[in-house]
This record gives sequence, structure tokens and C-alpha cells, in this order.
Amino acid sequence: MRTNERPVYRKREVEIIPGYIKHPEGSVLISFGDTKVICSASVEDRVPPFLRGKGQGWITAEYAMLPRATSQRNIRESSKGKVAGRTMEIQRLIGRALRSVVDLEKIGERTIWVDCDVIQADGGTRTAAITGAFVAVGLAVDDLLTQEKIKENPLTGFLAALSVGMDADGEALLDLDYEEDSSADVDMNVVMKSGGRLVEVQGTGEEATFSRRDLNKMLDLAENGIEELFELQKEILGDFGEKLAETEKEAQTAHAD
Amino acid sequence: MRTNERPVYRKREVEIIPGYIKHPEGSVLISFGDTKVICSASVEDRVPPFLRGKGQGWITAEYAMLPRATSQRNIRESSKGKVAGRTMEIQRLIGRALRSVVDLEKIGERTIWVDCDVIQADGGTRTAAITGAFVAVGLAVDDLLTQEKIKENPLTGFLAALSVGMDADGEALLDLDYEEDSSADVDMNVVMKSGGRLVEVQGTGEEATFSRRDLNKMLDLAENGIEELFELQKEILGDFGEKLAETEKEAQTAHAD
Amino acid sequence: MRTNERPVYRKREVEIIPGYIKHPEGSVLISFGDTKVICSASVEDRVPPFLRGKGQGWITAEYAMLPRATSQRNIRESSKGKVAGRTMEIQRLIGRALRSVVDLEKIGERTIWVDCDVIQADGGTRTAAITGAFVAVGLAVDDLLTQEKIKENPLTGFLAALSVGMDADGEALLDLDYEEDSSADVDMNVVMKSGGRLVEVQGTGEEATFSRRDLNKMLDLAENGIEELFELQKEILGDFGEKLAETEKEAQTAHAD
Amino acid sequence: MRTNERPVYRKREVEIIPGYIKHPEGSVLISFGDTKVICSASVEDRVPPFLRGKGQGWITAEYAMLPRATSQRNIRESSKGKVAGRTMEIQRLIGRALRSVVDLEKIGERTIWVDCDVIQADGGTRTAAITGAFVAVGLAVDDLLTQEKIKENPLTGFLAALSVGMDADGEALLDLDYEEDSSADVDMNVVMKSGGRLVEVQGTGEEATFSRRDLNKMLDLAENGIEELFELQKEILGDFGEKLAETEKEAQTAHAD
Amino acid sequence: MRTNERPVYRKREVEIIPGYIKHPEGSVLISFGDTKVICSASVEDRVPPFLRGKGQGWITAEYAMLPRATSQRNIRESSKGKVAGRTMEIQRLIGRALRSVVDLEKIGERTIWVDCDVIQADGGTRTAAITGAFVAVGLAVDDLLTQEKIKENPLTGFLAALSVGMDADGEALLDLDYEEDSSADVDMNVVMKSGGRLVEVQGTGEEATFSRRDLNKMLDLAENGIEELFELQKEILGDFGEKLAETEKEAQTAHAD
Amino acid sequence: MRTNERPVYRKREVEIIPGYIKHPEGSVLISFGDTKVICSASVEDRVPPFLRGKGQGWITAEYAMLPRATSQRNIRESSKGKVAGRTMEIQRLIGRALRSVVDLEKIGERTIWVDCDVIQADGGTRTAAITGAFVAVGLAVDDLLTQEKIKENPLTGFLAALSVGMDADGEALLDLDYEEDSSADVDMNVVMKSGGRLVEVQGTGEEATFSRRDLNKMLDLAENGIEELFELQKEILGDFGEKLAETEKEAQTAHAD
Repeated sequence: MRTNERPVYRKREVEIIPGYIKHPEGSVLISFGDTKVICSASVEDRVPPFLRGKGQGWITAEYAMLPRATSQRNIRESSKGKVAGRTMEIQRLIGRALRSVVDLEKIGERTIWVDCDVIQADGGTRTAAITGAFVAVGLAVDDLLTQEKIKENPLTGFLAALSVGMDADGEALLDLDYEEDSSADVDMNVVMKSGGRLVEVQGTGEEATFSRRDLNKMLDLAENGIEELFELQKEILGDFGEKLAETEKEAQTAHAD
Repeated sequence: MRTNERPVYRKREVEIIPGYIKHPEGSVLISFGDTKVICSASVEDRVPPFLRGKGQGWITAEYAMLPRATSQRNIRESSKGKVAGRTMEIQRLIGRALRSVVDLEKIGERTIWVDCDVIQADGGTRTAAITGAFVAVGLAVDDLLTQEKIKENPLTGFLAALSVGMDADGEALLDLDYEEDSSADVDMNVVMKSGGRLVEVQGTGEEATFSRRDLNKMLDLAENGIEELFELQKEILGDFGEKLAETEKEAQTAHAD
Repeated sequence: MRTNERPVYRKREVEIIPGYIKHPEGSVLISFGDTKVICSASVEDRVPPFLRGKGQGWITAEYAMLPRATSQRNIRESSKGKVAGRTMEIQRLIGRALRSVVDLEKIGERTIWVDCDVIQADGGTRTAAITGAFVAVGLAVDDLLTQEKIKENPLTGFLAALSVGMDADGEALLDLDYEEDSSADVDMNVVMKSGGRLVEVQGTGEEATFSRRDLNKMLDLAENGIEELFELQKEILGDFGEKLAETEKEAQTAHAD
Repeated sequence: MRTNERPVYRKREVEIIPGYIKHPEGSVLISFGDTKVICSASVEDRVPPFLRGKGQGWITAEYAMLPRATSQRNIRESSKGKVAGRTMEIQRLIGRALRSVVDLEKIGERTIWVDCDVIQADGGTRTAAITGAFVAVGLAVDDLLTQEKIKENPLTGFLAALSVGMDADGEALLDLDYEEDSSADVDMNVVMKSGGRLVEVQGTGEEATFSRRDLNKMLDLAENGIEELFELQKEILGDFGEKLAETEKEAQTAHAD
Repeated sequence: MRTNERPVYRKREVEIIPGYIKHPEGSVLISFGDTKVICSASVEDRVPPFLRGKGQGWITAEYAMLPRATSQRNIRESSKGKVAGRTMEIQRLIGRALRSVVDLEKIGERTIWVDCDVIQADGGTRTAAITGAFVAVGLAVDDLLTQEKIKENPLTGFLAALSVGMDADGEALLDLDYEEDSSADVDMNVVMKSGGRLVEVQGTGEEATFSRRDLNKMLDLAENGIEELFELQKEILGDFGEKLAETEKEAQTAHAD
Repeated sequence: MRTNERPVYRKREVEIIPGYIKHPEGSVLISFGDTKVICSASVEDRVPPFLRGKGQGWITAEYAMLPRATSQRNIRESSKGKVAGRTMEIQRLIGRALRSVVDLEKIGERTIWVDCDVIQADGGTRTAAITGAFVAVGLAVDDLLTQEKIKENPLTGFLAALSVGMDADGEALLDLDYEEDSSADVDMNVVMKSGGRLVEVQGTGEEATFSRRDLNKMLDLAENGIEELFELQKEILGDFGEKLAETEKEAQTAHAD
């Protein structure tokens, strides 16, 4: 049985507090159960060298954990003088995922820096980070629109993520906490865009392997859970969220025609 | 006039939330106005090489800021691959200050790692960090006592800090916020132990200089403000705080005899 | 039309030259078309600190490219003083994948270091690296068995990988070369173990997204291609390969009972 | 009793050899007893990026010790690949102190790089470095004036520093040597500008604490000793020193009116 | 007796495979017996900052070994985060040697990056690297001429290198393999330009020393062996090689007049 | 004509001040004209890991320059975070050269760390460093003998070095100063042991080349100059130097028999 009598198909309590810190153009504190991440979106009026003069913008992400976000204290990456492979993998994933829902030409020659800092970790930090980062970017974009720095909403849909895994009995579980994650045989992170589109699927079985059938079972669970995250994001983003949902629906209808 | 009609001799609103994150043996979120720092104390059952086999413990501190804790985003020290001079200076100060109120022999062969992570900065981050770090260490020590890992309280008093400065008109101001700090001629950080003892005095006038009279005026302001911080720390630490206050009073009386 | 009139479902010419360099316990030069990777497996008689005294071994991988393996020269990571995120991601993937087909207890307190050095790159370097690395490990394990350093074959099956992608017209393509990879909308790397088991599925659409149907279409292509790689690996590994294939078949039959 | 029957209020023998190395615009070898520091001032015709185009100059300092300046050999910071916290703290202090006696606009768009290299250490290296660095800067400025690269003397006074401490008996001692420093309870570094102005006061009691009365006693000692250093600096700087002393006196008189 | 009954004055089998990898402007795989090095020459249309606007080009070299090029696996320099002293020494030598046979003005504002990657090491890697690098540069230069990017051949002669050593009996040996090198008392690397000109002579006896007579004996051996390398280089370079040999002969005749 | 009317075959004024700094077991300040190097020898009672338990010692060297030892200020290697190739090359040369005159078994399980810090540079810093380092090691060894920590003198002869070059007119010059070195066509560093034995010969012609005859002419000059350095070293080392000279003479006679 899972902690708090949670059924296998249910994600943990998710909370998103917008405007959590005052300086960034957009920021949230997102919790997936005991996993808590501060996500901020900072707008800078220039782009990296490889994009200069191309009339488009860029979104990039960084991810880190406070040393004692985990049950054992970790040495700071700044002390070690290098960024761990796991960190790089996660921040590349977050950046890539965000870019799949943004029309970079519409943000102009700007960079949106997304910082995801885990202050408390209990499994699923990367999926919480992606889900929160999207809202932080949404708030920053809303601000750019309000200030008339940009004219059109560059976001093309909602973006959220959940982990899903399989335990030793072949049972698929949604949104694993740290303990479940440690004992799972297969671990999968699914990132989706609203409208039922996959953005990233990363399934891995370090010691175990999995079948196509397992894969499909896990994807089903993830899809359902992520739909609920889209609803929460829309709500937190208020009017901006409403409008985004409508625009997207229209685009899909148009596409379907 | 200062923000919020604050008189020159008054510090900002101070709030300390104990147990802010779940993994560390002690943790707080401390705010000095808009400056917010997560302080955690982690207990490790071994000491650095230079202390091995000496029957005593160690306390060390690390300090960092989230990239967007400030009004402009800062590049992460982990990305740069090195820790800035300012960071090192502050973390050395925090560690040194904490060690002045701890009897290291009484903590046994253990290291207490103190992490001060600024999530929002508005001036006075190092003084907030010291003040919060003391409470985090207090909570961790209380836990060690409760678990009977140690027998006697190694803390010998309360520890807190405030900044104080002089503006261009020679007026002394307590607990400067970022804007005041940027325009101050002289900047001083005062760390004190309960009982009116100075632990660190760091006064600096990058472009200006100051007289002995100025120095004394600033120290007077700081002392008064810090006394109030000791009261708040005692309250947050509950029974443990009460007992510490009593023990210290007795020690002072004994000393006075 | 693809280069050399290659149909969408066909992988490039694959060649594996065993014993390519003389010092390692196992080594191959593997080519997937113009992509060429030297894979070597080095056996060291000790394990990393976290495994000491646990009676099991470890497999870890490193990946690099010669500076001019690509059409533009890249700065060496040793000159930059740090390993790129992409490199870390790939070497973590290779190590994880190999560990999924090895019974680490059967290799004893040893580490197998796998080095994958790309001497010429034309897309699919990570899948070529995994496929070649498996053979290098096979050769090293065969050597350990022959020298009677270990008693049982720790390999539990064959391991190979292929990339698969979708172009702008929604056509799924197997084993993309560099040019195809650059213009593909979706890029997926599939790592499999013999017996039709998935080890890793990493699908990503940086700017585009994909549907469940697309995912399945791509997996179908990958599975077929990988089966052919297993055949080639078996052949190259000679007697050792034959025996592994038999053992595995028995295990599956047993499992099926 | 102190080494060489030195009274508590007396500093060690101080010697300043100007022009000690030939390439820098200004250089000295300064000794405080057995502590010996080569200080050099190098003039560069450009400023750091944050000052470009602002019509003012910059002064910055670096500090280092030869590996065997101390009784135990230290590993070079270049071998370790990073600069220690203590080094950063000291070089930031030296730079800040020098800037407090220089009118940066009068040096034009130039940077004065000050290098303080300790060739033999016996306590008080940072105070010797500041005192010697001021003379090296004075020589470099004199040279700029002679060559008519600048028109007015940018120096606004003399700058010197001394350490002062308290031993276990509460006795205040001026200019501690290494052995005294190691056993002192409180350690304070005082940097002053001629005219009795404080520039930096850094008092610290790692294990002990100190009272306001102790602080004042230590400052009294330091002030007296530093006055003597100003005299020596004036003498070494010859005509330039005389003129600086006069100009400063006039400024003070004017200020007093 | 040497391996394979090789006489003391004979170098190992030398093989040069031109065009070994497809991307670089020039590349070879060179073998000196079991020592195998991939040498590539990459042409970049700009020069390092210190040469900008001077109307001349630059040639620089980098050298590395695959981790398992040697009998024991070496940790990658990229993992260690720094380049070893031995590596730097060798790459500086290769670059310097190449520049001695190139008229840098004739290559225009271009940099030729030479990469020498040892895939299998058995002694003499630096001499094989220099000899192969020259051919790679020759191929790249031939390509620049063919494409009419440059008008005149910037090469002024052939360049090759051999090691020579003395064993414990005072016998001079040409082209030492790893085992011979490990037991030699004196180790010398000789780099020559065609026409009997010395480019670099680096003789070293870590524990032993050597006489002027020894030095001359070793140089005699090296000169003879290197002449044979020039012949091989000429052959591999085809027409370009023939022309270079002629031009050089003319230059020497002219010089002799 | 050379500076100070120095003939081509004459080295600059050489001065060696023993005991220049107080902490090291042996130290000197050596000057070759305006080139000044502090050489120190530090004895540590342990050896690097690769020598542990082998009953022998080790000698290693480090080399550095103060930032303003040169006419242009250099950035510190500690700031850059890495040691330059040139530095590594020189320190490897110094260590290797010293080991050629020391019987490592006779120093027991100790490491002698040699630090050569250039405080003023004017050409020939590496040859001055080697020549001074030998004396520093001699002083440290003398100290070990006096304290009876070792029983026999591990030094087997004197060690010194000089540079020699050829100018554009083919004239060979001894002991080049910075200006001569910059304009020389060929640059050679010769390290010798007393008794006329070569230790290192490093001749290089970055743009020019040289003949065997040139090489011999340069070696003749170097040999004569180095003999004079041996005399000076013997004198500075006093009784210890006398005894070393005698022992060596006996060894040579014995060898000659």
C-alpha cells in the first residue's frame, strides 16, 4: 500500500503558489507532496551568441538542489567546482521541454532564464520542476504582454510532466515518491503538451527491462495525471490561462479541419 | 525618510519559521523584511581530517544565493566553477561566529554543517543568515540532547547579528535594506553573543572613512537591536531557549563574583 | 529519398571489427555507415567506494569524440576543463544500458570501464556506441572466463540500440544519419535487450511533439532493426555468442513456463 | 614577555625598500619584523568592463604567499586550481582600503593592479601588505605625474594598517607576530587614513568574545602605531610624500573651518 | 636482442594511411610499429587574437591519448578537468616543430589546428605524431592550393621525427618501443627538416647522464632514420610531395651558391 | 654589441645568497644579471603514493613567476585556475634535472619539494632556477646530515644550467638576456652535472633550424660557462661543497680505472 492510502493511479497533492519571490518576472513555489521547488523565470534583453541577429529568442533552464533538500546532505556543486551529470541531464530536459511550447520568434531577441531550485526533495523533482517552470514562464510572458514588450502570446499550449514507474510486481504507479522511486524496477518521465501530445518520453530500467505492454500501461497513467495538472496550471494563470486554453482549442480545431 | 516610515534606530520586521524543511536536524526560514534565508543545520557523525581523534566536534557554514534572489539574475557559482570571494567571506564569517558560542568538545566527534541559502535578498543577508543559523543549530542541538546523543548543551549563549551604516549626512541607521546599503558611506556588521559580548565587528568605508565617535554611535544602535533578536530566538527555541537563557545568566553571575 | 536509396525502414551498413586495439581486455571498431566508434572494455580489479566489500562488481562508461570527428572542429573537453552536458548524458546512458544485461555479482569485485571514442561522426553515435560497447564487454567477459577469473557468464542477454525519428511529413525513419537527424522533428533512441525487452526509450521533440501512434510506429521500426544487430553481435562473439544465445533462450523458456 | 623584550604597545621593526623590483611602475619590499612582502603597483591603460566609458579609473589588489613563506609548506593555489577563501578575503580588503584614499576620477581610465606577494610570513601579512601597497601605489602615481600622464595627485592621504590583539590575560598587544597571533583570544586589524580616520576595523574572537572597553583599548594602541607608519611612508616617498602631507593638512584645515 | 630481431639502427615498420577520417581537410593514420596515431589538420578561417590583422596565419597542435591506448587505463584529462604536463609539453613541441617548416604568411589569416590522437601506444608517440601531422598538414595545404584559397605552397620542406636512446650498456638504439624506452638510460627526441637541418633536439637522462660522444652517436642514428621518413612522406603526398622535394632542392642549391 | 659590453662567450654576473628566507630547510636568492629567483627546498617526511614502502625518496619542483616579474603584468595562474604549459614544462625539467644528481635511496622516505619563484625576469629563468635549486637542495641535505636524519650524502655531483643561442648572423651567444632571447633564431638550454656529463639538452629553433655544427658550437660555450657555475656553487656550499667535490673526483677516478 502507498503512503497515505494513495491508489496507484493517483498523483500526490499538488500546490502551486504564484509570485513566491519578488524579483523575478515570474515565479512559483510548486509542491508535489513533500517535493518543493522554487521555479523562477527571468527575462533578459539579449540572446546567446549563436542566435544574435536572428530575430528570435531563447529559453534555457538551470536546476539545482539545496544541499539538505535530501535526507543526506549533498556537497554543493559550486564547492566541487563542477555540475553533476544528473543535474545537466535534468536542466537540459527542462529547457528542451519548455521550448516545445514556445514560439521563440514571438518573444523577440530575449532570453528567458528558468531557475528550478529544489528546496525539499521527495522524488519527482524534475517533473515538479517542469510543471512549475511552465507556470513561471507563463507569469513572465503575461507580464511582457501587459507591459506591451511583446504583442502576441508566444505560448502554444500548456506543459506538464509526471513520473510513472513499475514496482517489482509489475504494478504501474503514478508520481512516485522517493521511497517508491528507489525500489521501482522501471522509471519513466513523461512530459506532455496540452492536446494529448507527447513532448518527451524517457523510460529506463537500470536493472530490469520492460515490455511494450508495460510501456503503454505507464503512458496511460501518466496521460491522465497530466491532464489534471493542465487544469491546475490554467487556474493559477487566471485570465492568461483561460485565453491560452481557448487559443489552443481553436488551433486544434483548425488543425483537425 | 526610510521605507515604511521606519525610524533610524529600528530594525525591519523579523520572522523566524522553525522546521521549514523536513530533512535537516534543524532548519528555519528567517526574514529580515524582504530578505529571506533558509538556514539548515545538518549533523554528520565525523569530523574533518585535522580534528580526527581529538575528541571534539566542528561547525562549518556555507552560504549561497538563488540566482534570482536579487533584482538582476546572477550566474550560478556552480556554472562558473568557482565560489566568489564575497561568498567565501560570508561563509567564513558565519562559521567563525557560530563557533564562538559552541563548546566544540561537548558536541563530540561530529560536524554540524550549516547551510544558509538566500531565496530573496534585500540587504543584510549575512546578518539574517547568522541570526537564523543560530536557531537552526539550536534546534539540531536540542534534537541531539533529546535523542541522548550528547549529554550537555554545548551552546554557551545566544548569537545574533545586525548591520548598521552611516548615510551621507552622518546619520547612523540600523539594519539597512538594499537601497540604503547601496547609498551608505559606511557599512558595519556587528555580531554579538548574549551578555553584551562582541563576537565580530566589521566596519568598512569603501570610499568614505569614519571616526571613533561614528564607530561608537553605530555600535550603540547595533547592540540595542541585537538584544531584541536574542529575545525572539529564545522564544522560538521554546524550553530549550529558556534553559539556555538561564544557564547563561548563572554563568555570568558566577563570572561576576 | 535517403542517401544511397536507403528505404525508411533500413539501417545503415553496420561493421564490427573485434580486437581493434591491443591493450584492452575487449575492443571493437564499430561503424554505422560513416559513424565510427572505438569501444574498449578495461577490467580493473577493484570497485568504486560505494560498492566496496559488497561482493559485486560495477560497469561504467565514458564517451568522447575526437575534435574533428565532426564537420566543424570541436574544442576538446580537456581544454575547456569540463565535460559537456551532452557527453555526460550519453555516457550515463551507455553505462546504465550495459548494467541492465549484466549480473554484477557474477563479475566479482571488479570494475569494467567502457570507453567509447567516436573517431568519425555521422549521426547515431550513442546507438553505435552502445551496440559496440556490448561486444567489447562480451570479449572482455569471454577473456575473464577463459582465464578462469570468473566462473559463470555474467551476461544475461544481448544489448543493442538504434535511433529512429520522424521527418516533417510524419514519416518514421530508422537509424538517422547526421543530415536526417538535423532535420527530423522527433528523435528517439531505443535500447533493447534480446528477447524483445525494452531497456531505454528516449523520445524527444524539441520543437515538435508526437502522438502515441507515432511513438508506436517508431518503436516498431526500432525493434526490427535491433533484432538484426543482435544477430551480428552473436556472430562476432563466436562460440561465446552462441552459448549466450542458447542460455538466454533457455531462460526465456523457463520464464514462460 | 614578548620576543626581543618588545613592550605590548610597540610594533616590530618596519623597513620599506622602494624600487625593489625593476619592471613595475612602483614597488617595495616591506618588512614588519620577519614578515616580508613584495608589493608592486602596475598601471594598465584600461579599466574593467563595468567602468568603461565612465571617465574614472580602478584599483584592485591580489595577494599570495610563496609556498614556503610559512613554517609548513603550503600547496600552491595554482596547483589546487582555486584561490582560498582567506586569500580572497585579504585581497578584497587591500583593494577596498586603497580605494578609500584615491580619487578614482583623477587617475583617468586606468587600472592600478597591486600585487602583494608574501615571501616570508611571521604574522601581520595583511597589514604589512596594505602599508607597503600604499607606498607602491604612491611611487606609481608619482611616476604618472612626472610623465604628465595625469595632472593632479589622486591620493587624498596616507594609508597604513596594524594588527592588534588580546591575549588570554586580557592584555592588548600591538602588531602580533605569528606565535602571538596563534595564541591570542581576539584579533583585530585596523586600517587608517592619515588624519585619524578609520577605514576598516575588523575585530574577531573565534573562540573568545570581547567587550566595548576591550575594543577601545585595542583601537587606541593601533592608532598610535599607525601614526608612526605614516611618518615612515612620508619619508620613503620623498618630495611626493612631503607634498601629500601638506595637501592633506590643508584639506583638514579647510574642512575644520 | 630487440623484438622481431630488429637491429639497433633500424626503426620499426612505418605505415601512413592518408584520408583516414572524412571530415578534416587533411588526415592520416600513422603507425610506428604498434604505436598508432590519428593526425588531422583542420583549417579555420581566422587567427588567434594576438595575430589578428597581421596578415599571417598560425599552426597549433593538440595531443591526446585514448584512455586505453596504454597497457593500464588512464583517467581522461576531461574528467580530471586539467591537461597533464606531459600532454602540454608534447603538444607545444608538435606545434613548434610544424611552424618551423611553414611560411605563416603564405597561409593567410587562417589557423591550421592539428590534432594528434593516439589510439594505441607503444613508445614514440610524439615522434609518430610529428611525422604524421606533417603529412596531414601537407594534405590540407594541397587542398587549399587546389581550391585556390592560397596561391603558393607555404611548406618549406619535409618534417619528421624519431626517438633514439641509450641502454644500460651504452648502446644507442633507434626508435624505441615502450619496453625499450622504459629501460633506457637516456632518451632523445630528434625533429628534423629535410636538408639535414635540426629543428628540435631534446635529450634527457633522468637518472643517468650522457657525454658529448653519446650525443653525437645518437644524432647520427636519428638522422639516418629520419631521411627514410622523408622519402615515405614524399611518396604519400604524391605530386604535391614531388613538387615540394624539388622546390626544396632548388632552395638549397640557391642557398649553397 | 651585447649590453654592458659583454662578450658572446661570457655569462652575466651570477650571485647566490644562501639562507634568503628563514623557514625552508634550504633556500637561496639567485641572480643571473637582472633575473632573480628565490629557490627553496622543503623536506617532508613522506613520499608520493607511487613510492610508498619502497624505501626511497623523491624530489619534485614547482616554478612560478610573480605577476609583475616581467615587463608586462601576467595574470596569476591561481586566478586562471590552471597552470600554463610553459610552467609545467619548466617545473618538470627542474625536477628531472635534480633527480639526476641525487641518489634517491639515500634520502630515505622523504620528499624534497623545490620551489623556484621568479621575482624578476630578464631571460634565463629556468637555467637560473636549476642552478639555484641545486644549492637550495645542497643546503637542505647538509642540514639533514648535520641533524643525522640521513647518514650519507645523497648528492652525486654538482648541477647547473645555462642557456645558449644563435642570433640571426649565426653567432653563438652564452646566457641570453630577455632581449637577446626574443631575437635569437635558435635557443638551447643545457643542463650539466660536474664531470662534464650532459643531463638535458633542449635545442629549439621555432622558425629557424640549425646544423650539427651549430649544435656543437653552442654546446662548447655552454660547457665552459657551466664549469664556472660549479665553482660558485662549491664555494657557497662551504665545507659541504668541498666534500662533495672531493667525493665526486674520487668517484670519477675510480670509474676511470
